[in-house]
Amino acid sequence: MKIALCQIDTTVGDFAGNAAKIVAFAERAAAAAADVAVFPELAVCGYPPEDLLLRQAFAERHDAALAEIAARAPRELDLLVGCIAANVDASSGARPLHNAVAHVHGGGHRIVARKTLLPTYDVFDESRYFEAWRAPESNIVELHGMRVGIVICEDGWNDATFFDRRLYAIDPVERVVAAGAELVVNVSASPWSAGKVAFRGRMVEAAAVRHGVPMVYVNLVGGDVELQFDGGSLAVKPTGAALQPVVFAEALQVVDTAAPWTEDVVAPPTEQAHHGAIVQGIAAYVRKFGFDSCVIGLSGGIDSALVATLAVDALGADKVVGVGMPSSYSSEHSVADARALAQNLGIGFHVLPIAPLQQAFDGVLDPVFESKEFGVAEENLQSRIRGTLLMAYANKHGHLLLTTGNKSETAIGYCTLYGDTNGALAPIADLWKTEVWALARWLNRDGVRIPVSSIEKPPSAELRPDQLDTDSLPPYDVLDPVLESLVVHERSVAATAELTGMARAEVARLFAMVQNVEFKRYQFAPTLRLSERCWPGRRMPVAHRYREA
Amino acid sequence: MKIALCQIDTTVGDFAGNAAKIVAFAERAAAAAADVAVFPELAVCGYPPEDLLLRQAFAERHDAALAEIAARAPRELDLLVGCIAANVDASSGARPLHNAVAHVHGGGHRIVARKTLLPTYDVFDESRYFEAWRAPESNIVELHGMRVGIVICEDGWNDATFFDRRLYAIDPVERVVAAGAELVVNVSASPWSAGKVAFRGRMVEAAAVRHGVPMVYVNLVGGDVELQFDGGSLAVKPTGAALQPVVFAEALQVVDTAAPWTEDVVAPPTEQAHHGAIVQGIAAYVRKFGFDSCVIGLSGGIDSALVATLAVDALGADKVVGVGMPSSYSSEHSVADARALAQNLGIGFHVLPIAPLQQAFDGVLDPVFESKEFGVAEENLQSRIRGTLLMAYANKHGHLLLTTGNKSETAIGYCTLYGDTNGALAPIADLWKTEVWALARWLNRDGVRIPVSSIEKPPSAELRPDQLDTDSLPPYDVLDPVLESLVVHERSVAATAELTGMARAEVARLFAMVQNVEFKRYQFAPTLRLSERCWPGRRMPVAHRYREA
Repeated sequence: MKIALCQIDTTVGDFAGNAAKIVAFAERAAAAAADVAVFPELAVCGYPPEDLLLRQAFAERHDAALAEIAARAPRELDLLVGCIAANVDASSGARPLHNAVAHVHGGGHRIVARKTLLPTYDVFDESRYFEAWRAPESNIVELHGMRVGIVICEDGWNDATFFDRRLYAIDPVERVVAAGAELVVNVSASPWSAGKVAFRGRMVEAAAVRHGVPMVYVNLVGGDVELQFDGGSLAVKPTGAALQPVVFAEALQVVDTAAPWTEDVVAPPTEQAHHGAIVQGIAAYVRKFGFDSCVIGLSGGIDSALVATLAVDALGADKVVGVGMPSSYSSEHSVADARALAQNLGIGFHVLPIAPLQQAFDGVLDPVFESKEFGVAEENLQSRIRGTLLMAYANKHGHLLLTTGNKSETAIGYCTLYGDTNGALAPIADLWKTEVWALARWLNRDGVRIPVSSIEKPPSAELRPDQLDTDSLPPYDVLDPVLESLVVHERSVAATAELTGMARAEVARLFAMVQNVEFKRYQFAPTLRLSERCWPGRRMPVAHRYREA
Repeated sequence: MKIALCQIDTTVGDFAGNAAKIVAFAERAAAAAADVAVFPELAVCGYPPEDLLLRQAFAERHDAALAEIAARAPRELDLLVGCIAANVDASSGARPLHNAVAHVHGGGHRIVARKTLLPTYDVFDESRYFEAWRAPESNIVELHGMRVGIVICEDGWNDATFFDRRLYAIDPVERVVAAGAELVVNVSASPWSAGKVAFRGRMVEAAAVRHGVPMVYVNLVGGDVELQFDGGSLAVKPTGAALQPVVFAEALQVVDTAAPWTEDVVAPPTEQAHHGAIVQGIAAYVRKFGFDSCVIGLSGGIDSALVATLAVDALGADKVVGVGMPSSYSSEHSVADARALAQNLGIGFHVLPIAPLQQAFDGVLDPVFESKEFGVAEENLQSRIRGTLLMAYANKHGHLLLTTGNKSETAIGYCTLYGDTNGALAPIADLWKTEVWALARWLNRDGVRIPVSSIEKPPSAELRPDQLDTDSLPPYDVLDPVLESLVVHERSVAATAELTGMARAEVARLFAMVQNVEFKRYQFAPTLRLSERCWPGRRMPVAHRYREA
């Protein structure tokens, strides 16, 4: 049997576009003599549809699109398409929908699989929408004389022999194999995070080896605001023979179950994968939002330089503009480094000095500022003047503003709400500062794009004279592992101190900083998810009294 | 048996404070000769703890606090206390925690009930944290010779004879009664929304009548950022005899199962309840955030006037400051109405004209603004200058900034990100404009606090000459029911047009406006939840292509 892995990019709610794409890939699959074409999870409506699923009209439009796909796809081809399906048992007390797979053939379609394991953690809320299917062993369809077991994304992520810790008691893969499946197809929308391509490869291979059947894993590709789907679709035989996955691009790959597969899964190195995910994420967001260009405040520092470079790779140099906004506290090299970056990248660049605005605000605020001592209000004011200038520029010229904050400063709140946090998208707020440097150096691997000075100078917010980040923080190579332990692994202050060697009181101070600035992250821009624990997936109370000593 | 309903206000993560309060109420219950004292859901750690539950250290601190409560509470008293409990079956594939109730007595404690129905909709994410308990019939403890069945919040909200539509197949109340419970206690954290007090009364009475046993419903009170718990604890006998609930205040009420209960449940009228919820919400947020005062931009319009009045009722007039920021487009009455309000309320008031700042921005932006035509950029700039002034004032004086947007304008995006959306809390963003007027008139019932002119003048953003909201929108008494249908009930454009009589193309235009500005709500301030469908509980994709015609 020849199976086409249709790794497509869908758009939430774009029923006409998604249906047209599914039909086009089906035609390509048929032209390549495939017997079966497999599409990702919720391919008909796009993933994740969130509360659009609560609209009855959305489900009706979905069903019409699925019928249209069936009417227009090549009739001799068998399609397996991720979709939603009404829960016929809902009247007795249950969610009205299942996350499902339709078998499309001969102009018609029927639901042949429903999802059992509903991810409800991190950024995932599937229990909010779907009823879990209790009988995964029924998810089998016979195609061309072969019994094909179907699981949906998370269904394939609960093997007791592969995972140390499991969230669910049932393993749907085990169930469909026990029920006679000779091949298992996973219809998936599994977002990328660092290390995910290699991990998926090991997991799918382990399942093929354990169960003695081939595994085909078809994943969504493309950016949906925060979630970045890498594709990385897989086909693995019990011998370990595999198909090389394609990442961050649409692909149609055909495998023949009767032929030998010989390639090893090679995963991209970390910086290359970060680059692929962020570039995809910027391009997808700007496009899905109906824009085609962006503006970035360029401080001369590494964060904004990196975001500008990634934006150029996503949109093209003619679609990116940088704005330098020096104050009297800005160092001499700030504008020079920003200008050098703009020249290297070939992007437009403007300088808008903020001193006249600082003076104007000082004049208006003078009657109501009894204390004239320079403090947080004055520091934040500079950042908010810059944020207002950038938004005015963006509004006037029809650009999206990108936010340049990284994960380290977003963790501890070294950012100003309504100032440097302004922006429609935060491309690197899930990269630690040490990862920012690594990615910048990788981008310079074939020649300098980001000025070396921006990479090598000591980090500073430049909001008061001679300010350095290290005035109040440990160096980032010391800080980042501590934050990773506290924020990503949710290890205790005590355990983090023991693990990292930092004094416990200092770890406790950092943990309190992280917890105290949840209000800043609450109003932060949508953040590209690049790890298994990004801000949109870490849901902490805004106001609470929990501290650790 | 005498039961003390301990309606307390807890703080998330404040283990010492919550434990001290539980012990203090237990002592008061013992002094009132109660046999049993019942506390709300998750009283030990506060509700909702969200991702703090993922920290092992949090669970350890919780268990220590529960042990301390047991050691310090009166030994002869039986306490039923909402808490978390380890899931002993987690190793076989399950969530590690249950939402539970501990029976505290004689210096020790044991878990006697676990939650079966985990709300995972609206603002609730309990499936993210807890394993559902499959055997609610085991939630029975014998106290003073009486078999007491225990359910936890949502467990009491799935009666097949009371609800038309059910999310779950199991009714835990039915199960504990069938297993012999002679009294059912509901340990709850049920947030308020309009009409909730009366609804709960009907629901609990229906259960008491149906099952022929008394029902005791002990609810949390107090504000936790967005969620406002009204308390409103209930005790109802099968005869319908009840205890009058106390709303928006801590309370300890003792009922004797052997004595007659005679009162009717009287729920507060809508405006009084809105007032109670919002005042509690502002006070709780400001206090839990470690502040004691706030600043509000006063435009002379109804929204900011209402927020200032509610803030005075929450914090006191000496803790509220108003700032008027007229531009050249502001009408003459704007500052006059704002000043009159400040005088009526007895709050501080400053006027900071923004013309010098508009001129300064115009000067800096002039070289990069090729088109000088007045447009969205210029409108937004005024709002962002005001937002920056307010934040500077708030930062300098240690106030929290309150956001004054209402639900109608937040729905359609008549607000400027990083401008008038700035603020730590949005007290009225879940009130339609028509509800804003109703609440303002109610606040003036014993004399004018909000100037009549602010209530009666036509709404205007005053961002360009002679601008009125009705230039581009229908009047609010026409608009609000349409938005309610689209946003709260998620009815289709077609159904909404039919229901309201508005032309279908106009409804489609409004629906597209709502869907197009999800990015503004994504970065909006925490919003007090006053309805069953508030912005934090409506989770829509930020970028998608779904429209209805």
